[in-house]
Amino acid sequence: MDYEGRQTHLRSALVENRLDALLVTHLPNVCYLCGFTGSAGALLLTERGSVFFADGRYTSQARTEVRGARIVIAGGAPLLTAGEWLASHRQKTTGRGSCRVGIEGEHLSFAGYGRLTGMLGSGFRLRPAPALVEQARMVKDTEEMARIRAAVVLGASLFETALTAIRPGVKETKVAGAMEYAARKAGADGMSFPTIIASGERSAQPHGRASDAAIRPGGFVVCDFGVILAGYCSDRTRTVYVGRPDKDARRVYEAVREAQQAALDAIRPGRSVGEVDRASRKLLQKQGLGKYFTHSTGHGVGLEIHEAPRVAARQTELLRPRMVITVEPGVYLPRRWGVRIEDMVVVTEQGCEVLTPGSKELIAI
Amino acid sequence: MDYEGRQTHLRSALVENRLDALLVTHLPNVCYLCGFTGSAGALLLTERGSVFFADGRYTSQARTEVRGARIVIAGGAPLLTAGEWLASHRQKTTGRGSCRVGIEGEHLSFAGYGRLTGMLGSGFRLRPAPALVEQARMVKDTEEMARIRAAVVLGASLFETALTAIRPGVKETKVAGAMEYAARKAGADGMSFPTIIASGERSAQPHGRASDAAIRPGGFVVCDFGVILAGYCSDRTRTVYVGRPDKDARRVYEAVREAQQAALDAIRPGRSVGEVDRASRKLLQKQGLGKYFTHSTGHGVGLEIHEAPRVAARQTELLRPRMVITVEPGVYLPRRWGVRIEDMVVVTEQGCEVLTPGSKELIAI
Repeated sequence: MDYEGRQTHLRSALVENRLDALLVTHLPNVCYLCGFTGSAGALLLTERGSVFFADGRYTSQARTEVRGARIVIAGGAPLLTAGEWLASHRQKTTGRGSCRVGIEGEHLSFAGYGRLTGMLGSGFRLRPAPALVEQARMVKDTEEMARIRAAVVLGASLFETALTAIRPGVKETKVAGAMEYAARKAGADGMSFPTIIASGERSAQPHGRASDAAIRPGGFVVCDFGVILAGYCSDRTRTVYVGRPDKDARRVYEAVREAQQAALDAIRPGRSVGEVDRASRKLLQKQGLGKYFTHSTGHGVGLEIHEAPRVAARQTELLRPRMVITVEPGVYLPRRWGVRIEDMVVVTEQGCEVLTPGSKELIAI
Repeated sequence: MDYEGRQTHLRSALVENRLDALLVTHLPNVCYLCGFTGSAGALLLTERGSVFFADGRYTSQARTEVRGARIVIAGGAPLLTAGEWLASHRQKTTGRGSCRVGIEGEHLSFAGYGRLTGMLGSGFRLRPAPALVEQARMVKDTEEMARIRAAVVLGASLFETALTAIRPGVKETKVAGAMEYAARKAGADGMSFPTIIASGERSAQPHGRASDAAIRPGGFVVCDFGVILAGYCSDRTRTVYVGRPDKDARRVYEAVREAQQAALDAIRPGRSVGEVDRASRKLLQKQGLGKYFTHSTGHGVGLEIHEAPRVAARQTELLRPRMVITVEPGVYLPRRWGVRIEDMVVVTEQGCEVLTPGSKELIAI
């Protein structure tokens, strides 16, 4: 990964935003910029260079992973280590009177901000920076795309395991377990989120994590799952029917499938993510199902399972080539059942390429 | 779970802290107080009652899970829904001029705090509250202890799977996968953290998540793993040797084992967590290994894998009966190998009960 290039890009954004330094504390952002994958660390970018901070648990891992930054290891929390370093290096960070340090306002806690302010004193001005790293992360580079494609293919293959495991009487957790084991055997780092296997009435919960409920005949099973492979996430949903679906179940399934296709058709560079959301929503509204589509159409995917952009009604972000998003409309009928269909796509010059392989025909088990 | 009792307890703490309301946004705290297990939600506690906020994805799940609170579902982020509700219910929340709302400063982001302040206007005073819910969560009640015991027993059993899977030439991820599959088959909700299988030089990384490295003969393998069962976490570490350990490996292993026992022996009500940390550290220092023990001795476990109290050198929290903590000293020799041994314990009236079953003798595979 081109960590130095990413840092250089960000450095020019610092100047544009009149910042002397940016303190990056959101771990996926830290990983994006310098390669560190541990559970505690911070990266300080200044005009002159970068410094990575971690505690003693990560001495060895930081040396192996971190690129493009000096490494400072100390006993306390990385945020406070960064604060101490800043306080003692003010002269080197900026020649001017007051050092302007950008923080990640969406991620740094209110208490963390307070501690940092207290440590730094009057020689510094802390202020929330725009989401510079998240903006950069939206558009994937070649190496990221290769990793995402590999994660999507591995992740999608788990649906075959689900199809074999889903039977009346089998517990949802058992299906999830079989899929997760298949993922590990295929080399995944782990799952990108708690596997959703939601059967019967539970399928009406958009986020119904696999429970110890047994799958019963006559109902939908929503399977929403993904893996992490070489740091990158996949995300796919398929909904199957156990038994013989009646007319109503078929009608709703087809409506969701058409809504998903409508959203896919709406994707092209220059369109807003809001338009993509409206494309699927409009189709479900025509079928009288609009009020049962209770979430947004999708989200960005990459180092995080949910990242920018949000593909939601009021969002105005414009699509650009090499953005990777999910398209996943759903319909949830309370106390009855639910249906969701989800693919991952990459925005291309002309439209989009659906990354997730596999049919979206209704499968009855 | 006695959600109403927990809320009542917290309500009396509100009065003591001169707060009219507490806005709980940290999800494990929300779950502790009202039972909600989803990935987005907020709970507002006032003197007169509680209100739970979520978005449309969680309508059905909130109705099923949430206890002791009115449920408000709206389109936006739960934090903003809570802000809108507060702004329109100020009169009902407090009869006085200004409504004092406590926030969770360690968890609410700086940006979230800013948005909330902007919405609420001058009729409200927001201020960081002490960690009231975390304090309450440290001491486990009877039902929590039953769940923790069940999680610990299930989690500990995965070591048998590891012992079968660990062989020269086998990838770390394959060992982790076998353990995770065994956990699912035994009914676990999932793993409580990314499984650590760190072999060879990687065992010198205290947090070496299972990688695609193959286990080589002649070295330690650190296995650190845990499950979530009925919402509660387990955490256990064992370190095994692949091949025939030399004198140095045996010496370090025994030193860690003695250090762990010394910390266990130091646990009793009224002692500080810092004293427990010092007990294990002192023993390793005597052996000249102090500087290779690069993390703290342990942490609380419950709804979260890491929760209060931190069992670290400078911490002054006093142990109380029914606190559940880990005891996990380790020694990490850079570019060579590492050893860690970890049990979960519950503080009793006289000392502690080790919850984690199983021997700590050095196992050679």
